[in-house]
Amino acid sequence: IETKNDKELKTLMDDFHYADIAEILDELNLEQAMYVIKLLDSETTSDILMELDEDNREKVLKNLSAKEIAEEIEELDTDDAADMIAELPEERQKAVIDQIEDEDHRAEITELLAYDEDVAGGLMAKELVKVYETWTVAGCLRRIRGQAKDVKRVHSIYVVDKQERLIGRLSLKDLITAKSEQKIADIYISSVDYVNVNEDAEEVAKIMAKYDLEAIPVVESDENKVLLGRITIDDIVDVLKEEADKDYQLAAGISKDVEADDSIWQLTRARLPWLILGLFGGLGSVFIMESYEEALNSYKELFFFTPLIAAMAGNVGVQSSAIIVQGLANDIVKGSLLSRLLKEVGLSLINGAVLGILVILFGFVMDMQFNFSMTIAISMMSVIIIAALIGTFVPIILDKRGIDPAIATGPFITTSNDIFGIFLFFYIAKLILGF
Amino acid sequence: IETKNDKELKTLMDDFHYADIAEILDELNLEQAMYVIKLLDSETTSDILMELDEDNREKVLKNLSAKEIAEEIEELDTDDAADMIAELPEERQKAVIDQIEDEDHRAEITELLAYDEDVAGGLMAKELVKVYETWTVAGCLRRIRGQAKDVKRVHSIYVVDKQERLIGRLSLKDLITAKSEQKIADIYISSVDYVNVNEDAEEVAKIMAKYDLEAIPVVESDENKVLLGRITIDDIVDVLKEEADKDYQLAAGISKDVEADDSIWQLTRARLPWLILGLFGGLGSVFIMESYEEALNSYKELFFFTPLIAAMAGNVGVQSSAIIVQGLANDIVKGSLLSRLLKEVGLSLINGAVLGILVILFGFVMDMQFNFSMTIAISMMSVIIIAALIGTFVPIILDKRGIDPAIATGPFITTSNDIFGIFLFFYIAKLILGF
Repeated sequence: IETKNDKELKTLMDDFHYADIAEILDELNLEQAMYVIKLLDSETTSDILMELDEDNREKVLKNLSAKEIAEEIEELDTDDAADMIAELPEERQKAVIDQIEDEDHRAEITELLAYDEDVAGGLMAKELVKVYETWTVAGCLRRIRGQAKDVKRVHSIYVVDKQERLIGRLSLKDLITAKSEQKIADIYISSVDYVNVNEDAEEVAKIMAKYDLEAIPVVESDENKVLLGRITIDDIVDVLKEEADKDYQLAAGISKDVEADDSIWQLTRARLPWLILGLFGGLGSVFIMESYEEALNSYKELFFFTPLIAAMAGNVGVQSSAIIVQGLANDIVKGSLLSRLLKEVGLSLINGAVLGILVILFGFVMDMQFNFSMTIAISMMSVIIIAALIGTFVPIILDKRGIDPAIATGPFITTSNDIFGIFLFFYIAKLILGF
Repeated sequence: IETKNDKELKTLMDDFHYADIAEILDELNLEQAMYVIKLLDSETTSDILMELDEDNREKVLKNLSAKEIAEEIEELDTDDAADMIAELPEERQKAVIDQIEDEDHRAEITELLAYDEDVAGGLMAKELVKVYETWTVAGCLRRIRGQAKDVKRVHSIYVVDKQERLIGRLSLKDLITAKSEQKIADIYISSVDYVNVNEDAEEVAKIMAKYDLEAIPVVESDENKVLLGRITIDDIVDVLKEEADKDYQLAAGISKDVEADDSIWQLTRARLPWLILGLFGGLGSVFIMESYEEALNSYKELFFFTPLIAAMAGNVGVQSSAIIVQGLANDIVKGSLLSRLLKEVGLSLINGAVLGILVILFGFVMDMQFNFSMTIAISMMSVIIIAALIGTFVPIILDKRGIDPAIATGPFITTSNDIFGIFLFFYIAKLILGF
């Protein structure tokens, strides 16, 4: 289909949703993608651009002039427009902004660019439907028709006072069912959820999910509630997905946000640091074992069990930390530290006892000395208890200090537990067997 | 506040949002919670019940009669109502349904109960605003006022033909801006996204996220598009959250959906199976090392490096599988298997080379034989390559066979890579050093 018929291709594309076209473009090479983009009108291409993979969007934008980008930007909602500009190199940002013809749009985008992307201000759009409390229902409906042209979906109508301060909301449904001569002041609902512009994006997501909101107004501050914008649920879906992806990757030992299709170099930068951490942990356990070298003569099997002990310590630690990290994220970690400690110890005792019995059974089958397999079982239980405690309390401590506890999952916990575990294993074995 | 003043407590509670009251109740004991619930009216309590923690809701429902539950159910939307009934023991389900007074509501709930909870039918609600193409705008507005009473939020108005088949949609905005004598048939938008009732819930979530939809209509089948219900974005947010939590827990070696505050017994059942898997893996490596026992005389340090090798194999495997599992979930794993294989090998060579150089440096510092540290570096590199390949291809193969690839992350990959890694390590060391 590619290099043949302009008209045919265009009619074909017109039938597709922009998200589908974006998916097709992601598969094409740059030259082909540019060809398709130039063919379509800017209303469609601006939506397509937003749906493209970030790397591909960057490449396409490089091939467009500042003026062309500005034309795309004019078609976008202010939040998407600001996001797209923020991705450009700094010197191009100014050039593109200067090319935006609509002055209001330009001012709004410039305002949004000032906010950090992980606060409410970075998520909000300026497009919203706003009415003054002094208006009548009839006047309101008339004006809403004007405002709504710029707003793709009307979620809620926000009611403000003369100082532009948010004082309540109005549902379209209420507006339709009200009599046309009524004043807005008489029919609006004064209880309205809102967030301030510097609220953390994750916190906004939590609030919207908790109260089942589809849009939330953003105000300047809790004291001075000047209405600045609104955040819609589709942006929150993206925040939740990114957050989940990030935690998942950290648990797997991948920093930075990478995807399967990123370059080898990007993937290496995200993965190698954690592997080096693991390497140092492994070298640490080489030291520990060397210091117990004398046990090699009488109890060489101890050394055969070290990978088992390390694996147990690692697995238990990751389980404990994952549960705590999720609990912290959902605000459901309650109760005192002491009761949590007792619970982890109890849990580890049960798990440890079952696993210990399996080790002793294995010892029987393999005809090991009972005394020796008992030693392994006991040290393994101790390792499991300590690993569970480390896995539980490291994230809690990090969280209390304001550090994202998710970084303590995965390789971090595994590595520290490997070293601790192997040390403890030999230490206890020495106590019991006395070598 | 608790056992003192009914009236005061009630006025206090009236100021709270139901989600906040639910949070407070989750903290109270059952007796206190029941006291508060009986105090409030059923409109509020039904919402509170839906927000309660699942375990607590179960306890509260046990303490209510079938008639009382039926009263709560009548206040809920059909989707929430069906979810709540589905949680009850089977014999109570019938009793509660029989007590629902509103016949339509009862029929709708019974219909929804028939669907599996992880398909579109299990997510949809019967509440929606539906208009026939033959209506006029004026007649439509009149009737919508009636229908909208039952619907908390009007997202879209669905247009159906005489056979109740979905033929398009109408936005409230368009309706307001249209002239009152126009026919719906003239103003509706015929392109409408929909899902069929048996579509997988995750698939529905993907579609809604991709096309930025806030609600999607559900039809009987792709051929016979009878409109059955609609799914709203807030339910999808829950699906996405659950899905992310599940994948995260599987990567950490936790099966079943558990939380930090679940009982020790529940936590054990979720965690112990994976630990037992890890134990068998560890015992496997005991076997492997025993078979290379003769190396102990000349190269005992090899055994000191086994935890390092196991950790590397585990970490690399988890990284690779996590990236692939996320890629599969987001449908971005493209290209041929061969190119993916080459990429993983390239990536592992880079990572392996850097880590190998570090090991050789460590060897210098520790005054190890160059020949020996070189052996360790080379075997480690091989282990890293194989671990990356296993981590990448096991999820891909599972996915091709229709098995959730997420189960192959975490302990599963770690354990199999531990065994493979240690075996390969000794095998290659033997080839080079010749013991």
